[in-house]
Amino acid sequence: MRADSPAALAAADSAAARLRDILRPDQVISDAERRDDYAHDDAEWAEYHRPLSVVLAETTEDVAAVVRFAAAEGLIVVARGAGTGLSGGANALEKAIVLSLERMTRVLEVNAAERYAVAQAGVINDALRSAVAAHGLWYPPDPASYRISTIGGNVATNAGGICCVKYGVTRDYVLGMRVVLADGDIVQLGRRTAKGATGYDLTALLVGSEGTLAIITEVTLSLLPLGGREERAIVGSFASLEAAGDAVAAITAAGIIPSALELIDEMCVRAVDDWQGLGLPHDAAALLLATVDEPGAPGAEAAASVALLMRDAGALAVDQAVDPAEVDRLFLARRLAYPALERLGPVLTEDICVPRRAVPEMLARIRKTAARHDVVIATIAHAGDGNLHPLIIAPDGDDAAKERAKSAFDRIVEDCGDLGGTVTGEHGVGLLKLPGARKELGERVLTMHRDIKAALDPRGTLNPGKAF
Amino acid sequence: MRADSPAALAAADSAAARLRDILRPDQVISDAERRDDYAHDDAEWAEYHRPLSVVLAETTEDVAAVVRFAAAEGLIVVARGAGTGLSGGANALEKAIVLSLERMTRVLEVNAAERYAVAQAGVINDALRSAVAAHGLWYPPDPASYRISTIGGNVATNAGGICCVKYGVTRDYVLGMRVVLADGDIVQLGRRTAKGATGYDLTALLVGSEGTLAIITEVTLSLLPLGGREERAIVGSFASLEAAGDAVAAITAAGIIPSALELIDEMCVRAVDDWQGLGLPHDAAALLLATVDEPGAPGAEAAASVALLMRDAGALAVDQAVDPAEVDRLFLARRLAYPALERLGPVLTEDICVPRRAVPEMLARIRKTAARHDVVIATIAHAGDGNLHPLIIAPDGDDAAKERAKSAFDRIVEDCGDLGGTVTGEHGVGLLKLPGARKELGERVLTMHRDIKAALDPRGTLNPGKAF
Repeated sequence: MRADSPAALAAADSAAARLRDILRPDQVISDAERRDDYAHDDAEWAEYHRPLSVVLAETTEDVAAVVRFAAAEGLIVVARGAGTGLSGGANALEKAIVLSLERMTRVLEVNAAERYAVAQAGVINDALRSAVAAHGLWYPPDPASYRISTIGGNVATNAGGICCVKYGVTRDYVLGMRVVLADGDIVQLGRRTAKGATGYDLTALLVGSEGTLAIITEVTLSLLPLGGREERAIVGSFASLEAAGDAVAAITAAGIIPSALELIDEMCVRAVDDWQGLGLPHDAAALLLATVDEPGAPGAEAAASVALLMRDAGALAVDQAVDPAEVDRLFLARRLAYPALERLGPVLTEDICVPRRAVPEMLARIRKTAARHDVVIATIAHAGDGNLHPLIIAPDGDDAAKERAKSAFDRIVEDCGDLGGTVTGEHGVGLLKLPGARKELGERVLTMHRDIKAALDPRGTLNPGKAF
Repeated sequence: MRADSPAALAAADSAAARLRDILRPDQVISDAERRDDYAHDDAEWAEYHRPLSVVLAETTEDVAAVVRFAAAEGLIVVARGAGTGLSGGANALEKAIVLSLERMTRVLEVNAAERYAVAQAGVINDALRSAVAAHGLWYPPDPASYRISTIGGNVATNAGGICCVKYGVTRDYVLGMRVVLADGDIVQLGRRTAKGATGYDLTALLVGSEGTLAIITEVTLSLLPLGGREERAIVGSFASLEAAGDAVAAITAAGIIPSALELIDEMCVRAVDDWQGLGLPHDAAALLLATVDEPGAPGAEAAASVALLMRDAGALAVDQAVDPAEVDRLFLARRLAYPALERLGPVLTEDICVPRRAVPEMLARIRKTAARHDVVIATIAHAGDGNLHPLIIAPDGDDAAKERAKSAFDRIVEDCGDLGGTVTGEHGVGLLKLPGARKELGERVLTMHRDIKAALDPRGTLNPGKAF
């Protein structure tokens, strides 16, 4: 970004000086270049500004003090975990203090008897997994970013992942939270018991609210037992998207709930194979990658059924694996798809969710959109959930291609709406999905959003202009 | 209730006449005695008044028209399903139009491909189960009232049940809803896709909000496949509550998630046996009743483990069953417990939820409370969730006993708080749990509730004075 104007520099210096009085000096970043590191999350296609200041909170009380300061000064606070968001929810807008929770990395409690954990917002998803695994417990939500994204960010965006198709999304695991409200007050919401129906479910309201209603500093998460699952992979290649869609429908109709049911289209297959030479079938329109995880004979039967249903739907070939290394190998193409495409240029990641029966039709429309707008689009899909990630690639420095990519993005959102879908399955609205989200919600429901926002954050201190 | 005063009668007649203009005449109940049938739900221990009017809505538009009328006239609307609530959430307060949804009984859609159903609010839980079972699908939430309670009421109170310990509560199955807002506007919230993160989760906010933020007229519910489960029952009797609690803890620690894990105490056992002569063990402090439902060998292994863990915890005897009729027979004592106790007098049903490890301590405190307050208390517990239903019995017409029962109720709520519990696990706050809920939520979180209520229902038309 260009250099600050003298006035902007003075404002930043003044804010930093005052924040250093409130926190410790080393918790405040004032250097312009380092502030730029916090200007946006992974959605640099969306609007962003250089933050006025960046603070590294270490306690809930730090967060409260910063929120009170911002409210008093008419500034805004943009809370941020690892900045892996894909919709711009953590992008800094004007007059923003970016409040990073990256230093709040303590797992405060793991309770095996009650099967919950309490973690600070900055704990990395994978670190939480390891911490609870040591107690024989499992935290299922597995966004692709799980090695680098934080629990706080996962909760603020209601992150999904591959295993949601069977095990649900982040929302399904949040029992309670400690939050800082817009006036700096600190409250505990929710519960630690297995059940509870006391008052409004404010915990659920805050999950996915993208830092616009409160700042989440600690989360209580319910957990599952770690053991008792045996993963079996079944991977089929299909000559047409329709055939792959038929296989998904047949698996659903058979009453099988796979623990993963992913699809990658031919663009992904080629990009991976051109890069890694895995010998993937270049004649396939799509690969369908499933796992089932029931232990023992029922799992073996489910895997056999999935393979059979893929063949019945016209699969060109079906591979199966039980050995963990083999399961990993069969899923390699899925894991490599995103990095393979990133090699081709900056990726604009879409995140739509359609009825699962509409996946082939949506994929066909995406192909047409790519042709019509002359852009490269490769699609990864959580097919079992109907959640598609069309990855739109525009070569670096080609502004015309970037414009065409944006038009394709809009077209995809429109098609998704036509097919009864929702504009974001798991990445959140942020800034990128605002127009689509507003259209989807409709004026009266948007008014409900504004009313709730005004009720809980009357000054508009917390991440205004995002989420709805 | 006593006869209306001439003024009250005139007000009721006037309201009925105007409502008959808005709806059809047969949708409005004006007769005082018939209005009394709608004065309260199953919590007649809580405050209630004769409704000013009772209307039987048949469409969402009917509901909207009644809400607009009430708002314009400064009346309140108390929405009601089957009136099986146990906390007084549907009790009529002053100036209330009770709006019954009992005629909205259509299952509008069952979509097997996407695994969801859309039902009007007045559909009986069991009718929904049957309707979706015909499509090979299963709606898990199973409140004890499932044969008579409505889906709308289940959603408004976030009803639980026996299988929640494995399959979650009503909240976990609600994808979306059609609702009437406080100004009579009709909106659709949520989604029909498997995933979605667009905007605030207003659907989740409304689940359990007891008709105070909007009136739910249609619900979109996610479903599971019907098949693939094989129920095995394991029932143990224990000489002490502690031993039963140890068994629950051991089952959890072993990573087993039973599909039911119920406890009935010796008062229940005796009441059932005195009534039905089932030959239950009178020397047992508690029966622990479990099912596991994994199919095949893994299910058999889990059942064997549960039996072994019960024995290791000191069970006096352990029975097992696989045959469905035998499973039913083993659970007979659990099913008969409530009716057996109702024979002894009016029952004041408690609904607390403590950490599952605190179940024995809570049961011991309940026993002390019963002795101290000289009342009969028998406890049914969803032990696997830590959700206890102490049933306080006061003989009919004994006002002193009724007062003692109320004191015992308050004491139980207090003990629950001391043990880190929540005042309602699955029945909702209604009126009965207001003092406990307010204490539990605390002043600042209560203010959040008031702010949200004021934002969505500024005139206080929708069931004011309930839920928080």
